[in-house]
Amino acid sequence: MDTFENVSVVKKANVYFEGKVTSRTLVFADGSKKTLGVMLPGTYTFNTQAAEVMEILAGNCEVHLGKNTLHVRAGESFDVPALSTFEITCPEVVDYCCSFVE
Amino acid sequence: MDTFENVSVVKKANVYFEGKVTSRTLVFADGSKKTLGVMLPGTYTFNTQAAEVMEILAGNCEVHLGKNTLHVRAGESFDVPALSTFEITCPEVVDYCCSFVE
Repeated sequence: MDTFENVSVVKKANVYFEGKVTSRTLVFADGSKKTLGVMLPGTYTFNTQAAEVMEILAGNCEVHLGKNTLHVRAGESFDVPALSTFEITCPEVVDYCCSFVE
Repeated sequence: MDTFENVSVVKKANVYFEGKVTSRTLVFADGSKKTLGVMLPGTYTFNTQAAEVMEILAGNCEVHLGKNTLHVRAGESFDVPALSTFEITCPEVVDYCCSFVE
């Protein structure tokens, strides 16, 4: 079973788009943060503060990032620069892990 | 910020009802488990194995448990015996923490 060990978890969920996207924040010993989240089928636009690495754990999605269109499947990831916008379309439920690159 | 400290988190989400209910499993140092989850508006039936304590972190819900109907709001919790069934109706997004009583 793939786990994150010895982390702190913020109890309160992060809820976006009326619950169609939700996540939990994990804080690691070194102070770095990740979120583990779920996106229901739909299209969502996100704005980043820090750069992010979005790892798709289950499901697949299409990502519009600048002029690029990425097709990302479970086991794959994509990078989003800091202070940028990306649009993501999920044809099915997507389970993801977002790592914030400070 | 209310957090759980020094826990292991299973990366993969628990996904029910086509993503309308999802959760993450936390394993504590003493081996006990909790899930942190979100329920979208709707009515859901669950069957328990171990007894559970369901703590509502945000939102409100109505719970049918045996002959009882409970109205549970954020900050409140309800107990579900082992090997039983309960029906929960969420008029809004509900954020919850489920503790398993082994």
